[in-house]
Amino acid sequence: MILTVTLNTALDITYRTAALTPHATNRVAEVSERPGGKGINVARVLAALGHESVVTGFVGGRTGDALRELLAAEGPGARAAHAAVSDAPVTDAPVTDAPVTDAPVTDALVPIAGTTRRTIAVVDETTGDTTQLNEPGPTVTPAEWAAFLTSYEGLAARADAVALCGSLPPGVHVGAYAELVRLARAAGRPVLLDTSGEPLRRGIAARPDLVKPNADELAQLTGSREPLRATRDARRRGSQAVVASLGAAGLLAVTPDGSWRAAPPMAVRGNPTGAGDSAVAGLLSGLVERLPWPERLARAVALSAATVLAPAAGEFDREAYADLLPRVAVTEQSSQPEQEPHATRQHR
Amino acid sequence: MILTVTLNTALDITYRTAALTPHATNRVAEVSERPGGKGINVARVLAALGHESVVTGFVGGRTGDALRELLAAEGPGARAAHAAVSDAPVTDAPVTDAPVTDAPVTDALVPIAGTTRRTIAVVDETTGDTTQLNEPGPTVTPAEWAAFLTSYEGLAARADAVALCGSLPPGVHVGAYAELVRLARAAGRPVLLDTSGEPLRRGIAARPDLVKPNADELAQLTGSREPLRATRDARRRGSQAVVASLGAAGLLAVTPDGSWRAAPPMAVRGNPTGAGDSAVAGLLSGLVERLPWPERLARAVALSAATVLAPAAGEFDREAYADLLPRVAVTEQSSQPEQEPHATRQHR
Repeated sequence: MILTVTLNTALDITYRTAALTPHATNRVAEVSERPGGKGINVARVLAALGHESVVTGFVGGRTGDALRELLAAEGPGARAAHAAVSDAPVTDAPVTDAPVTDAPVTDALVPIAGTTRRTIAVVDETTGDTTQLNEPGPTVTPAEWAAFLTSYEGLAARADAVALCGSLPPGVHVGAYAELVRLARAAGRPVLLDTSGEPLRRGIAARPDLVKPNADELAQLTGSREPLRATRDARRRGSQAVVASLGAAGLLAVTPDGSWRAAPPMAVRGNPTGAGDSAVAGLLSGLVERLPWPERLARAVALSAATVLAPAAGEFDREAYADLLPRVAVTEQSSQPEQEPHATRQHR
Repeated sequence: MILTVTLNTALDITYRTAALTPHATNRVAEVSERPGGKGINVARVLAALGHESVVTGFVGGRTGDALRELLAAEGPGARAAHAAVSDAPVTDAPVTDAPVTDAPVTDALVPIAGTTRRTIAVVDETTGDTTQLNEPGPTVTPAEWAAFLTSYEGLAARADAVALCGSLPPGVHVGAYAELVRLARAAGRPVLLDTSGEPLRRGIAARPDLVKPNADELAQLTGSREPLRATRDARRRGSQAVVASLGAAGLLAVTPDGSWRAAPPMAVRGNPTGAGDSAVAGLLSGLVERLPWPERLARAVALSAATVLAPAAGEFDREAYADLLPRVAVTEQSSQPEQEPHATRQHR
C-alpha cells in the first residue's frame, strides 16, 4: 500500500463555457466535480497502475462530504463505466506496463470542523484556455493536527511508501512536512515530498528520500535557474534524491545511483493540469517496484506526457502512455557536480 | 404574507480576488455564500421592510442543503449581528419608512432529486468589476412539478400577494408561469411576474396584475426600444399594469390608474446586482399596503438605488434608502398612447 497525504484537499469543479468574458455574466454549459488535491490525484494514477493506495489529509463541511462521496464512487466499477462511454476502447488498449483493472483507493481522510475548499477551472471552449480560481482552504486547529498525526503514524507504519503532496492549509505549522518526513523515516518508510516554498525548505532538511520540485520551486529554493546546478544544490540540502520537473523538457534526476535526464520523444500539447502528480505516481510506483532509476524516470515522463494529452484534466491517456513509455529518452549525466555533462548515453 | 416563487434557486457564491487574470491561476482571498435566486432576494428585502414572506420553488442536493441552512440563519438575530460589525450603525439609522426589526422569511421550498445550481460572482478588487458564472440548474421532473403545484396552490390561497421571479430550470414547461398566474388569479390573489423571453410572453397572456421587465426584456417582448410605446404595448398583451425598469433612469409605469415615470434624484454608482429584485419588493410591499402608485414607484426606485449603493451585492443601504425616498421624482405621463408627454408634474 502507498500512502498519499493531501493536507489541503479540494473539491475540483470544472465549468465549460462557450467563452469566458471577464466583467460579464457567463452561462456555464457543463459542470463536473471530482475529488482533488495533489495527493488524491497521485492516488488516482497509482490505482490505474495497479497500486493499492490510501489517501489521508483533512476533509470537512459539505464540500468535504461531496469529495468523499465522489472518491468512493471512483472505484474500479465506476472507472469501467466511464471508459465504456469514452471514444477510446480503454480496456482493449495495448497497455503492457499497467494492469487493466484499477487497484482500490482507500479513504483515510481526517474530519475537521472547517469546510474543504473548492477549486474552479473555467474552460473556455473557444480558445481551450483554462482560468483557475482556488479557494484558500479551511483553518486546521491544533487538536485536528494532533488527531491527524496519530492517524498518520498508524498508516505510515503499514505503507510501502509515503507521498506528502501540495500546499499547507491555514493553521498547519510551516514545519509540518518536516515533522511528517521524520515520522515516516522513524517508521523505516521511504518518503517523497512534493511541495514548495518554506514547507519544502524545511521538509528537505528532515532528509526525505525524494523531492520533486518544478523549475520555479527549485529556483525559489536554491536561487539558481541552472537546472543541474540547482538540482544538485537541492540534494545537498538533505534529500536522498531530487527529481526536478522541467515541463516539456521532462525530468532531471540527481540520485545516489547517478544522474539522468529523461525527456518525452516529442513535445505534447494539451492540458498540463495534473502532469506533475502523474510524474509523482510514476516515481512512487517505480520505487515500490524497485525499478532501476532510468525505468522509474521513463515511467514518470510517459505518464506525465499522457496526462497532458488526455482531454479531462488530471486523467492520463492509457494508450498514449503505452505508446510513449518505450520512446522516452533517458540520458545519464556526468557524475561531476558543477560540470556540464560531456558523455551522455541513450538508456532505452 | 407575501409569497415569492423562485423556481431556479441558487447558492450565490462571491469570490474576492486581488485581480482576476483570465487563463491563469487566481487565488481567492475571501469566499462568501448566501441563498440566491430572484424571489429569495425579493423576500429578503420584504423582510427588511417588515413584511412577512414565504419563499417557495425547488431546492436539492448539497448546495440546496447549504441554501436552506443559510436561509434559516438569515433571521432578524443574524441580521442584527451582521449590522453590529458593519461600519454604519444600521439600527440607529433614521429609517422612517421601514421597521427596524426584520419580519420572518419562511422556507417552503420543495425538495427535488437534482442539485441546486451555484452562481459565482468573482469580484476583482483592483477594478471593482464582477465576472459572473451561472450554472444551468437541475432538471425538474414532471412528478416534482406536480408536487410543487399542490404546495403552491395552498400557499397562494393564504398570500396577500404572489411574486413569480426569474428563469425556469430545465424540465419545467415554458408555460409554467402562465399556469401559476392563472392559479393565483383563481385564488383571487394579486400576482406579479418578473421573468423574460417566452415564459414572460406566455405569462403576460395569462393576465397577471403586474410585470416588471427591464429595457432588454421589454424590447425582446414588443420589438420596440421606445420605452413608453413598448410599456403600453406590453400592457395590451394582458398585464393589468407594467412597470419597466430603465436602469439608472428609474421606472416607467403604465397602470389602470395612470402612467408615471419615477427617477432617482441623482445617478448612483455601485453594484447593480439585486437592484431589480429590490424594485420588485418595493412594488409588492406598496401593493399590499394599498399605497397610491406614485408612492409605490418612489419606494421601488429608492430601494433600487439604495441596493446599488450597498457594498454587498443584493443588500440595500437603509440609510441611503431613507435619504433617497423623499427625493425620488415621480412625474405623471400623458394618458394618450403613442404620444409624448406634454404636461408632467412633480409628485412628491
